[in-house]
Amino acid sequence: MAAPVTVYGPAISPAVARVAACLLEKDVPFQIEPVDMSKGEHKSPYFLKLQPFGQVPAFKDHLTTVFESRAICRYICDQYADCGNQALFGKKEDGAVGRAAIEQWMEAEGQSFNPPSLAIIFQLAFAPMMGRATDMAVVEQNEAKLAKVLDVYDQRLGESQFFAGDDFSLADLVHLPNADFLVNRTSKAGLITERKNLARWWDDVSTRPAWKKVTEMQSTPRPS
Amino acid sequence: MAAPVTVYGPAISPAVARVAACLLEKDVPFQIEPVDMSKGEHKSPYFLKLQPFGQVPAFKDHLTTVFESRAICRYICDQYADCGNQALFGKKEDGAVGRAAIEQWMEAEGQSFNPPSLAIIFQLAFAPMMGRATDMAVVEQNEAKLAKVLDVYDQRLGESQFFAGDDFSLADLVHLPNADFLVNRTSKAGLITERKNLARWWDDVSTRPAWKKVTEMQSTPRPS
Repeated sequence: MAAPVTVYGPAISPAVARVAACLLEKDVPFQIEPVDMSKGEHKSPYFLKLQPFGQVPAFKDHLTTVFESRAICRYICDQYADCGNQALFGKKEDGAVGRAAIEQWMEAEGQSFNPPSLAIIFQLAFAPMMGRATDMAVVEQNEAKLAKVLDVYDQRLGESQFFAGDDFSLADLVHLPNADFLVNRTSKAGLITERKNLARWWDDVSTRPAWKKVTEMQSTPRPS
Repeated sequence: MAAPVTVYGPAISPAVARVAACLLEKDVPFQIEPVDMSKGEHKSPYFLKLQPFGQVPAFKDHLTTVFESRAICRYICDQYADCGNQALFGKKEDGAVGRAAIEQWMEAEGQSFNPPSLAIIFQLAFAPMMGRATDMAVVEQNEAKLAKVLDVYDQRLGESQFFAGDDFSLADLVHLPNADFLVNRTSKAGLITERKNLARWWDDVSTRPAWKKVTEMQSTPRPS
């Protein structure tokens, strides 16, 4: 029987991978529904009802639809609070203060880490896959921006094991898709692996079973 | 006696104004602590302990510090759940589904609305204040991006009174600072006022007492 939770989009998309990682950490069964972006399926009337901006992923749980990967991750943690990793969005006893410690680094990811890292990934990994030329000026400009963010991250990860403290949380999880691309599919791994605390963190978080399953999904060609 | 809540940064900053609007909606007393960015105070060791990226606002509530304006807004709503506007981050009875309806539009704001609107505001409002030249190519490029987002917004606001449904929520509130700048301090008001549903929404949300207080704070010069 099909699970009530469906994620629409290809697992190779960092935003789709972010949601899949969250569902796996929470032990929530789900299926992935392919969306062929080369055929423009993400701009079809059907898809636009699920995701009005025409971006992947779209997400459905029974009759509830949610868009934007970070909003979907928050929903999964709240709706399935008692499943899987229960510290992922803060322990109940830590209340609003514990959740804020996670939220501030999730916002740092969305506002400061994601734009330059995604620009680099696009130029060095996706553009070649799509047969497009790489714009090295864009890479260099974004590498300089990203380096400043990663300096702050490296300092933070010298103070605590994970972004929000002693527990792996959504604050760490939201970084995984872009960080994995940088380390494993571009020539810019050093941005992460040459910063001592960030490298230690990356070894910790990238070997988690949930994330390893996502990378397997990304490397398995889907039947078309 | 000083309130336990302090917001660090100038009210003219859109991110500071976002947090102030949330505190006013929630009826939480606070003070604003000026940060003289022209003197580099946001890069001082003291400030960097509150906000490691050296950006405004920083935020303190008793001994808790939080950074990133949208994370601070979420914290205020969770920590002061029983104060002021209690529907701001979703009604309790609407649970995870109600909150997700808000979160998806907050993320749309942070990911899709904020970058191009902030770029336009910077070029047309802040650059002149700082005696810097306006780059019209940047304005035009971002106006095209923003128009696509606002088309989706206009459609959404034709379906419901506010972004997340029948109640004003954080999903609306996070848009106020940049929207107000666009309408009242640039030549690009039409981006909002010439879209029928968006214009109706703007009339609703911009006349709320909390937001009017924020704009008064923005137009009152502070003693230096």
